Amino acid sequence: MRQQDRKGRFITIEGGEGVGKSTNIQFIQRRLQDAGIDLVLTREPGGTALAEKIRTLLLSPSDEPIAEMTELLLIFAARAQHLAQVILPALQAGKWVLCDRFTDATYAYQGGGRGLNTAAIATLESLVQNDLRPDLTYLLDLAPDIGLSRASKRAALDRFELEKIEFFERVRTVYLQRAADEPSRCVVIDAGEPLTQVQTAILQHLETLL
Amino acid sequence: MRQQDRKGRFITIEGGEGVGKSTNIQFIQRRLQDAGIDLVLTREPGGTALAEKIRTLLLSPSDEPIAEMTELLLIFAARAQHLAQVILPALQAGKWVLCDRFTDATYAYQGGGRGLNTAAIATLESLVQNDLRPDLTYLLDLAPDIGLSRASKRAALDRFELEKIEFFERVRTVYLQRAADEPSRCVVIDAGEPLTQVQTAILQHLETLL
Repeated sequence: MRQQDRKGRFITIEGGEGVGKSTNIQFIQRRLQDAGIDLVLTREPGGTALAEKIRTLLLSPSDEPIAEMTELLLIFAARAQHLAQVILPALQAGKWVLCDRFTDATYAYQGGGRGLNTAAIATLESLVQNDLRPDLTYLLDLAPDIGLSRASKRAALDRFELEKIEFFERVRTVYLQRAADEPSRCVVIDAGEPLTQVQTAILQHLETLL
Repeated sequence: MRQQDRKGRFITIEGGEGVGKSTNIQFIQRRLQDAGIDLVLTREPGGTALAEKIRTLLLSPSDEPIAEMTELLLIFAARAQHLAQVILPALQAGKWVLCDRFTDATYAYQGGGRGLNTAAIATLESLVQNDLRPDLTYLLDLAPDIGLSRASKRAALDRFELEKIEFFERVRTVYLQRAADEPSRCVVIDAGEPLTQVQTAILQHLETLL
């Protein structure tokens, strides 16, 4: 789909473990629904039955080590399905889409965390998304040690959460670098601030789309 | 892995439904083992526990239509895993690998059958395989109506076997075109001939590798 063919807005929320994505997604959802916007709330990897099966393959700790290229291709396979089944039809119909993680996460986790070649990610991004990019991306930023300590309290750790702290430091570095490179799309929110301050910052940027 | 770093030979068997791949794979396996070759017999999509799970996603008939790009990326995700876990370690250790379908099948089924852009397939082939290509590829060729009639007798039809005859005609056309384009690698075997003739032809080309 060409950029001009879509009517709805595409917003993504990014960030490491335990930065408060879920809480703030609910906050954005309420604000947009109050404004009368028809909103589709979704997540990556996942968002369709098949893509959620791929998510399970990606996140389940496993005896078989997953090759880095396999991981990258599974992520983009799930994304292709999510785009075809959910995101593109919604945007074309004039709905807004709010997605918990998208391709910035691939650059951060697979590029930064795993050290995969950024050119390979960019190649797949073009192949799968053509020129589709989010209109607005919130990056909830927090020191990984604080975020991981929050995340570890809520559930069993997935295959990514089992990585070492250095992995998450590299994830954070790439996230911040991407936000710095694309300031018109990306808003960095200090997730270490009190929630009311976080949400004031979120709202301020959301209003620009309304 | 660069071509010169591997010691073992890589043989693939290609062809549509019901062309007799299994029978002839067993025949090649016996001949190579008689020659004292340490052989790894494997298949695509699949060949590792994770890649077999991806195979299940690809082959199971499903209510959710699978986007063409999703299908292509899942196939290459399974291939990346198969290469990393099975094929490359075997070839590096001097073993031979005999694989039931490989990337020619992707060009034939996804490129020919589905009509996906060949450039996208070539991009993924380079990304996942670097310069690895089979040393020898047998293409078992048969008119699709005969092959499908044989295949339909043996088990429930998978998601591909449920396609229309025109799909398989396009698959065959691309297979034959690829074989014509790469005559030093690909051997076309008329799978409509009696088995002894098929196997004489197979053996003749196998000897050139021994």
